[in-house]
Amino acid sequence: MELTFLGTGSGVPSKMRNVSSLALSMLQERDEVWLFDCGEATQHQILHSSIKPRKISKIFITHMHGDHIFGLPGLLSSRSFQEGLNPVEIYGPPRLKEFIEISLKVSETRLKYDLIFKSISQPKLFEDHHLSVSSIPLKHGIPSCGYIIEEKDSVGPLLPDKLKSLGVKPGPIYQNIKNNEKVRLSDGTIIYRDDVTGPPIKGRKVSILGDTHASDDIIEHVADSDLLIHEATFIHEDQELARKYFHSTSLQAAQIAKEANVKQLILNHISSRYLHEDLQKELKQIKQTFPNTIYAEDLSSYTIQKEG
Amino acid sequence: MELTFLGTGSGVPSKMRNVSSLALSMLQERDEVWLFDCGEATQHQILHSSIKPRKISKIFITHMHGDHIFGLPGLLSSRSFQEGLNPVEIYGPPRLKEFIEISLKVSETRLKYDLIFKSISQPKLFEDHHLSVSSIPLKHGIPSCGYIIEEKDSVGPLLPDKLKSLGVKPGPIYQNIKNNEKVRLSDGTIIYRDDVTGPPIKGRKVSILGDTHASDDIIEHVADSDLLIHEATFIHEDQELARKYFHSTSLQAAQIAKEANVKQLILNHISSRYLHEDLQKELKQIKQTFPNTIYAEDLSSYTIQKEG
Ligand SMILES: [Zn+2]
Ligand SMILES: [Zn+2]
Repeated sequence: MELTFLGTGSGVPSKMRNVSSLALSMLQERDEVWLFDCGEATQHQILHSSIKPRKISKIFITHMHGDHIFGLPGLLSSRSFQEGLNPVEIYGPPRLKEFIEISLKVSETRLKYDLIFKSISQPKLFEDHHLSVSSIPLKHGIPSCGYIIEEKDSVGPLLPDKLKSLGVKPGPIYQNIKNNEKVRLSDGTIIYRDDVTGPPIKGRKVSILGDTHASDDIIEHVADSDLLIHEATFIHEDQELARKYFHSTSLQAAQIAKEANVKQLILNHISSRYLHEDLQKELKQIKQTFPNTIYAEDLSSYTIQKEG
Repeated sequence: MELTFLGTGSGVPSKMRNVSSLALSMLQERDEVWLFDCGEATQHQILHSSIKPRKISKIFITHMHGDHIFGLPGLLSSRSFQEGLNPVEIYGPPRLKEFIEISLKVSETRLKYDLIFKSISQPKLFEDHHLSVSSIPLKHGIPSCGYIIEEKDSVGPLLPDKLKSLGVKPGPIYQNIKNNEKVRLSDGTIIYRDDVTGPPIKGRKVSILGDTHASDDIIEHVADSDLLIHEATFIHEDQELARKYFHSTSLQAAQIAKEANVKQLILNHISSRYLHEDLQKELKQIKQTFPNTIYAEDLSSYTIQKEG
């Protein structure tokens, strides 16, 4: 699970920060990349990354502000040119379908793959053997949400010594045992997976929030996340601006991260009014509240480590 | 009159060439910048140029393909953030209004300035004391057009010797004489402008074409242009692809430039399949047909010199 920040700015693009988008690569786990938000020029940022558009299988949009959606028509169109043929599922507010369909229609763009629009009106959006995705509502000028990805616990590692003691020699049978709760050997012995594996490997939890006024309401939902992505459009000194525009400050995000006992906080959607030095100074302060904080940077990546 | 190429690529953006847009700066003449086409990330390219979005007063769209229009919602929105308050006139195909209005509506974007949509169904689109703009239809998969800007001739330079011989000393009166066909001096003498100015300065003609299959039909309309911008998606060797996709080759563009007796040809909308070396080699060949040819490059500028 690797997160790549494609656009970490807010509202308008600047030379250092494009408008909102990030990619969650799960190539090992699912051979898929998921996008979260797609501001204008997200496809351009992707050109400067190692992400392959044809691997993008799901796109999650947090809210309808232009800096989160204007890159969709171009990205979907180019993905078709680049022989992305598998379907793309798009999760987002109701009018997203209208925006995309009209953009494609007026431009006579015919995609070579299917677009499947998924509603986000129910909390649980997606679930399979590997993980589940839910949405939580956020407080912003217009309806906005966060997406919580929760990976399921997976089978612990096989214990070779235990297997040997049961007379099971290394071979294809190992994979069989790993994949099944119990396996009958040719001599009739039944091997129970629980007996020959270490403790389950805890699944990872990633919480990716859209634009939001700071609110304690989300704490229970993002609790214990391995990674929390929280907007910090403004620094603490500008909290009045944050209040006015339904955004958050770095300090507010840090306080929430602390209350929610997350492992890592990454601050995103940063106003371009701040110079690099301003943010470095701010970060020093913020780490006093929550040490595991960093500011997102365009085209930087963060790998979410699995336990065990 | 300075042309800046913001995107010289075709269809999809590449690292070297963004999708279609060019800016005609007429700051001296009109304190305005006009945009021709606005593919995705045009506003980003503008960040890397000296163009100020608030100076953009007219936008001309040649056709509805996504690589020519997907940058409009973001550019118009950011221009509003950046205190561009004077209206913007948008010329283009009928469904352009729908695309822009829906994009702004679904994203709850309220512009601080007026958008005025202008039809391109009549050949003469705009005219004032300075210049006129007309459109010509082009042959492409969908309706496409070119825009012809014709500057009017302007008054020749004042001849100081002639004025002195008539007893007119240098001063504010010079501007008065330049601005009026005849001026009565305080002593009753009438100065006729034609008597004291050199020959009129010929207005410039710039022809900016959208995507097109090569066609002799346009020759009469672009004849004698100071600058012709013609697409050359493909090189001569790939003329079958050009035919298939309703595009032109570099050689076809050069032949038209020659027939039309233009002064300078700039080849635009270049497929990213060609490396720099391929195009250099092609250009060498093309110049044998029409010497004053260059390939457009992203963020390069070309000043159209005025005669005299
Ligand atoms: Zn935003
Ligand atoms: Zn095109």
